[in-house]
Amino acid sequence: MSEIAADPTHPRYQSLLMRHRLEQAAKKGMLADSALIAHGRGEAFDYLLGEQTIPSALIATKHALGLLMAAERPVLSLNGNAVALAGSELLQLASRLGCPVEINIFYRTPERMEALLTHLHELQSALGLEVPIFGAAPDARIPGLEGPRAKCCKDGIFSADVLLVPLEDGDRCEALVAMGKTVLVVDLNPLSRTAQLASVTIVDELSRVVSNMNELSHQSSEVLMSPSFHNSEVLSSSLDHIAEFLAEKRD
Amino acid sequence: MSEIAADPTHPRYQSLLMRHRLEQAAKKGMLADSALIAHGRGEAFDYLLGEQTIPSALIATKHALGLLMAAERPVLSLNGNAVALAGSELLQLASRLGCPVEINIFYRTPERMEALLTHLHELQSALGLEVPIFGAAPDARIPGLEGPRAKCCKDGIFSADVLLVPLEDGDRCEALVAMGKTVLVVDLNPLSRTAQLASVTIVDELSRVVSNMNELSHQSSEVLMSPSFHNSEVLSSSLDHIAEFLAEKRD
Repeated sequence: MSEIAADPTHPRYQSLLMRHRLEQAAKKGMLADSALIAHGRGEAFDYLLGEQTIPSALIATKHALGLLMAAERPVLSLNGNAVALAGSELLQLASRLGCPVEINIFYRTPERMEALLTHLHELQSALGLEVPIFGAAPDARIPGLEGPRAKCCKDGIFSADVLLVPLEDGDRCEALVAMGKTVLVVDLNPLSRTAQLASVTIVDELSRVVSNMNELSHQSSEVLMSPSFHNSEVLSSSLDHIAEFLAEKRD
Repeated sequence: MSEIAADPTHPRYQSLLMRHRLEQAAKKGMLADSALIAHGRGEAFDYLLGEQTIPSALIATKHALGLLMAAERPVLSLNGNAVALAGSELLQLASRLGCPVEINIFYRTPERMEALLTHLHELQSALGLEVPIFGAAPDARIPGLEGPRAKCCKDGIFSADVLLVPLEDGDRCEALVAMGKTVLVVDLNPLSRTAQLASVTIVDELSRVVSNMNELSHQSSEVLMSPSFHNSEVLSSSLDHIAEFLAEKRD
């Protein structure tokens, strides 16, 4: 980690810390080749949002958290980047919600699954938590997807009614919505297929989202949910925010 | 490479091909840890430009090419991503301009320099070109920079009057401008320090830029250069283009 990133008062500390976590995860074999490129795309959109939680993203975060709290079978679906960027914080959230997590990755290989499961169990042990961790033995399939990416666990993602799937790809988001699930995504690009297809799209950086959720988790689901929530309004609002950012810079 | 990327008629073929080239270069040890993240940031901005050469970028490309042609000592400065994304095309451009290239990387290690020099000499040999390739034995320093990133070659970058430095970092761009050089950069983020500090900023994807330059290289420098070129207008125009893209998507 560079000297800049070691200084928490540096304005880009958080961004550099996330980059560092990802580079470490890559060295441990937790990530697909395309993971760092995907993170870079996210960095660019976060830059255009001013590297902050914008008001509409906070509304979406609260609404999503309320839905998870009110769910009968909530599950947090984790891919490589999610584990790398906010593994501990996601386990804490699952513990507070009393729900399982499931490792579910796009480019599934035994080596990557093993690296991710080992890492997550180490984090869980260090935190003293007892969150059920699914993913090691998939025994169900998501209809409409082909190959290894369809694999999931029957008592995890397959049976969930409300799913948090940060950093999901468009095809799988679509397939999960088609199963009738409420799909909550975290995606910094408000124009992505995932962002457009999800039930609730949080246009914000993942570690900030999970930190916000953990801080808000003492509130009740009734207080957190917006009765008039429309995901299209959240998406439009984030586009407006980026356009304003560009207009300010242009002047 | 995925099946999508193997199909040149796929709308995202070019983008997926660039990603593939970068992943191959990473495996050969040509890239720093942060190179894939930087590429991802570029991908996001390219997406917002519609993955095309916008009119103001073509004006900047022509002007930059004209300046290189009219220069006394033009040099193309190449970093890891530039070699990975458009190594062959950059050698062809240097050959047409009759100028040297110099490998000049931010995180300089003997292993990365060796990997890049080897790769570039292999490309040169396959193309049957005889472009002078500097970088192996730096014997000068760029004033105002500290550590290995200041290293350069006396007969290359140090003595150049016009420099093409694609994908440059802000500090080095500033230091090269301070030396009195005309600094031409390729940067997909029109708001970056590099984009703001350069003499000419081409807001476009590198392989498209070099391809455009090679196609335009039979024209004369007088025809290519814009007498009333203002870099700030190029930057404003690219921000306008992104804002229009977002507005279209919002409607």
